[in-house]
Amino acid sequence: MSERLVELAKRRGFFFPASGAYGGTAGFYVYGPQGAALKRNLIESWREQFLTREGHMEIDAPTVMPESVFEASGHLDTFDDMIIECPSCGESHRADHLVEDETDIDDAEGMSLSAVEELIAERDLHCPNCGESLAGIEVSAFNLMFGTNIGPGSASPGYLRPETAQGIFVEFPQLKEYARNQLPFGVGQIGRAYRNEISPRRSIVRVRELTQAELEHFIDPETDEPPLAGVADVELPLYSAAAQAEDGDVEMMTVATAVETGIVNDWIAYYLGVAAEWYERVGVDMSRFRYRQHQPEELSHYSSDCWDAEVEVDGNWIELTGFAYRGSYDLSKHDEYADEEFTVFKQYDEPITVERPTVDPDMSVLGPEFGSEASDIAEELQRLAETDPDAFEGETVTVTVDGDDRTIPIDVTGFAVEEVTESGEHITPHVIEPSFGIDRLIYTVLAHAYREDEIDDEPRTSLALQPDIAPTTVGVFPLMTKDGMAERAQEIVERLRSDGFTVNYDDSGAIGRRYRRQDEIGTPYCITVDYESLEDDTVTVRERDSTEQDRVAVDELRSHLRSRIVTS
Amino acid sequence: MSERLVELAKRRGFFFPASGAYGGTAGFYVYGPQGAALKRNLIESWREQFLTREGHMEIDAPTVMPESVFEASGHLDTFDDMIIECPSCGESHRADHLVEDETDIDDAEGMSLSAVEELIAERDLHCPNCGESLAGIEVSAFNLMFGTNIGPGSASPGYLRPETAQGIFVEFPQLKEYARNQLPFGVGQIGRAYRNEISPRRSIVRVRELTQAELEHFIDPETDEPPLAGVADVELPLYSAAAQAEDGDVEMMTVATAVETGIVNDWIAYYLGVAAEWYERVGVDMSRFRYRQHQPEELSHYSSDCWDAEVEVDGNWIELTGFAYRGSYDLSKHDEYADEEFTVFKQYDEPITVERPTVDPDMSVLGPEFGSEASDIAEELQRLAETDPDAFEGETVTVTVDGDDRTIPIDVTGFAVEEVTESGEHITPHVIEPSFGIDRLIYTVLAHAYREDEIDDEPRTSLALQPDIAPTTVGVFPLMTKDGMAERAQEIVERLRSDGFTVNYDDSGAIGRRYRRQDEIGTPYCITVDYESLEDDTVTVRERDSTEQDRVAVDELRSHLRSRIVTS
Repeated sequence: MSERLVELAKRRGFFFPASGAYGGTAGFYVYGPQGAALKRNLIESWREQFLTREGHMEIDAPTVMPESVFEASGHLDTFDDMIIECPSCGESHRADHLVEDETDIDDAEGMSLSAVEELIAERDLHCPNCGESLAGIEVSAFNLMFGTNIGPGSASPGYLRPETAQGIFVEFPQLKEYARNQLPFGVGQIGRAYRNEISPRRSIVRVRELTQAELEHFIDPETDEPPLAGVADVELPLYSAAAQAEDGDVEMMTVATAVETGIVNDWIAYYLGVAAEWYERVGVDMSRFRYRQHQPEELSHYSSDCWDAEVEVDGNWIELTGFAYRGSYDLSKHDEYADEEFTVFKQYDEPITVERPTVDPDMSVLGPEFGSEASDIAEELQRLAETDPDAFEGETVTVTVDGDDRTIPIDVTGFAVEEVTESGEHITPHVIEPSFGIDRLIYTVLAHAYREDEIDDEPRTSLALQPDIAPTTVGVFPLMTKDGMAERAQEIVERLRSDGFTVNYDDSGAIGRRYRRQDEIGTPYCITVDYESLEDDTVTVRERDSTEQDRVAVDELRSHLRSRIVTS
Repeated sequence: MSERLVELAKRRGFFFPASGAYGGTAGFYVYGPQGAALKRNLIESWREQFLTREGHMEIDAPTVMPESVFEASGHLDTFDDMIIECPSCGESHRADHLVEDETDIDDAEGMSLSAVEELIAERDLHCPNCGESLAGIEVSAFNLMFGTNIGPGSASPGYLRPETAQGIFVEFPQLKEYARNQLPFGVGQIGRAYRNEISPRRSIVRVRELTQAELEHFIDPETDEPPLAGVADVELPLYSAAAQAEDGDVEMMTVATAVETGIVNDWIAYYLGVAAEWYERVGVDMSRFRYRQHQPEELSHYSSDCWDAEVEVDGNWIELTGFAYRGSYDLSKHDEYADEEFTVFKQYDEPITVERPTVDPDMSVLGPEFGSEASDIAEELQRLAETDPDAFEGETVTVTVDGDDRTIPIDVTGFAVEEVTESGEHITPHVIEPSFGIDRLIYTVLAHAYREDEIDDEPRTSLALQPDIAPTTVGVFPLMTKDGMAERAQEIVERLRSDGFTVNYDDSGAIGRRYRRQDEIGTPYCITVDYESLEDDTVTVRERDSTEQDRVAVDELRSHLRSRIVTS
């Protein structure tokens, strides 16, 4: 099926490999007129569901970001894949995929470089390109970020963002102002992300330039709770870590039960519920859909729970969305590396009075006695007062500086306990991140909509796309271009367009061929203007999947179509 | 004004410098919630006007493209700015801008590197950063493309596209299939483009990562004509090359007159007309707008006519859009460099019969006699037959190979004249390119909408944005959150949202403050739910610019607002 879908996608203008006239560039695709429209419709539906309805903000940040951002985020050090280069033909391969493809091991990605290198040697794996043995060849880490240089002369290194998320995290100090410093709030971004994949493959499923729709929902973990009521009864096909470990199966469970039994974090469960309903609405076949929990060894060290939405296409399960509870990791890292504060001031219900131990070391004593060590000693005293004020109860206190104990008389430390009234505290919000890959969603929606059947003994290919997601909603054809039928059809086109439908006018070739053209781009309705139309102002409305035809008055077209198109 | 607009833009979430927590990255900006919405509205309006209404296609191609594309397009060789680096502080400057800023010369951009270098020495210009003299310092060419590497190992060089246009040109062989090989057709693309500016400046006016909306309209220059009728009476403020040369002025002229008098190419004039109406509709102040023709020395060598839409903001004229007649340049270059054909087969009305002189040299004679020269001789014979068949009228024919004359008997050449029936010919379409910069348009629309006035003796700042372009259409406020007013207001919010309005609910602070907040983000209408509303189901509708208030029944809200919001 995959090849036929890819052929259809190119022929009908959904997507095709970029720069084909120059031999192509692996991992880069162009969305043609139909694909670009489908992509816009899916993005608009995502925006409506995950931003507008939820009351979240949307921003639009640069795709090129300075190196310092990725030092903080960890991408510079750890956003790697395992690479092995064939000594004979020079082709690079993803070493973990090589192992997964050629052995019965499923998850080589989680292994160490040396473990994968050993496995390749042990099993004597060969280069898929030229057949040379790869035993003994080094497996190394390859950073997936595209690098560039910003500015002339002594240029600063920059990178194409590997995810839209960092464009949100790094602007948190400004974004929280727009949220009037109140948690919870969410910020979304839809845009390009870039991953210099070692082996791009499977058409638009693994590409080097992709489109993501990501939401970062910032919450106070102590007090904020998700609005579960609206999704409590949504059924989730859950493939838990436990089920995976025990060769178990997907289990259907409502959001409410999943939360009650503690299988899923409540915030994650909320978004699994919202997303399940949305996926169904945009045309994902839910019988080929599951939520798979990350197993403990898959989890990032900062993530306490993570589930992937997965779909089956072409016989494989692929990841569509990651839902991660990222804790305070991202904001804490930026708080540590950057010049601004990545916290929110949380007001207490009532101001509280706290005792705060402080020191005020007498430097005129410490200085002469300890010389250059004096300021380190003062710092250690401050630290000790905060962590162990009881240490200041005797006549002296001892701190350790550079491994040496220094004993200081209490009166020189200026130790005191002050009463302070605090109206609140600075907290680092936690983050829930639903991260959607739009390209894979496009592929999935097309693959799940792909149909081959026979109509009037002729083979037919069609795309059973959801009416409000299809690139074109209505095709309008004059039976012939003479006797005023073309003009009447054009009038109907104008009218439907002003009613908000996406309309395609086609007067070329036999009606049957025109139907097939629309079937192949997934147009749900086709209207034909014939001789009868000129007499009684009715037209034929033909439905794509059933190919059934209704005779409808032109004045009724709008309501006829509206009632059949459930817009999200 | 500029500083106050930029301050408002940051405070209210239109735009602000990116990565501020890391010290910022010059030339990169983030669009906050209001700016991202404004940008989407402008893009949607552009799409409707320049693609949907015109029946053009839209594609979505990668932003990273291989080097071969830019070898062909010429960007690798010539997409340069003049750079001069201060020997003292190391700061890089755009040499031509330095000359323009510091002397009375307006157009240093058109000068040669050495001319600018001489001028800097002659006028003894200094580094704007540290004051060091730049006399005698080399001015060199700096390529503005951001480079990167695609793939691992023996990576291929790639570049971030400097314009969206190349993503269209390079895919022409596929795109013409979607147009069923029929001219004229247009293909648009809206997306990121990247220019590694030497000195990014003036906020979002000169940035390193920008958003473009470009249309490439492919035509047969011999037969296709623009649909001028629809825009014939549109008045264009034309600042022709002649007027510029003679210190003349902008002249108002209809599209029809501009075409008749030959001042503007007819296709360009068509788009100047369409764009003038569109600019006015999205809120550009047309009294600060002009179309400036490129002077002969500004024109690219391939462009026969080019006009820029320019607007005055902050006291300067800046370019908003370029309208260029690019001829067959782009497609010819790709045809020359790439493996596919960048032409369209143009069917003749009737097949024609042509005489085609051919040769079929007898290599069994030429080979032994001329050895390794034989194939060159055969090629020259073919060339001569095509260009000068009369040369074959005698008993021998002479061709020149490597400077030596070679005389060949006619019967060895196999010369003949065949009659061939041709049904058409391959032609290279010409291209008309309207190229819009979206970031500059956003800045312009904000700058032209910026107002400072006094309301009730209080200073007020507001943005008089067009209602259908403003980020929010309606603000809805409960007078207080008690007695059911908040609930009633929320119901109105839901209702207006389902009617397609963008609605902002706000119940925080005094009503006056809430009005000011909406004024500052350009919301055209604010609705207040008060005690009276609970009794008679009417609300107050307040208009932004006049601050006039109407009492409107809730059931009438939709039509009240619709009648005041002219959607494009």
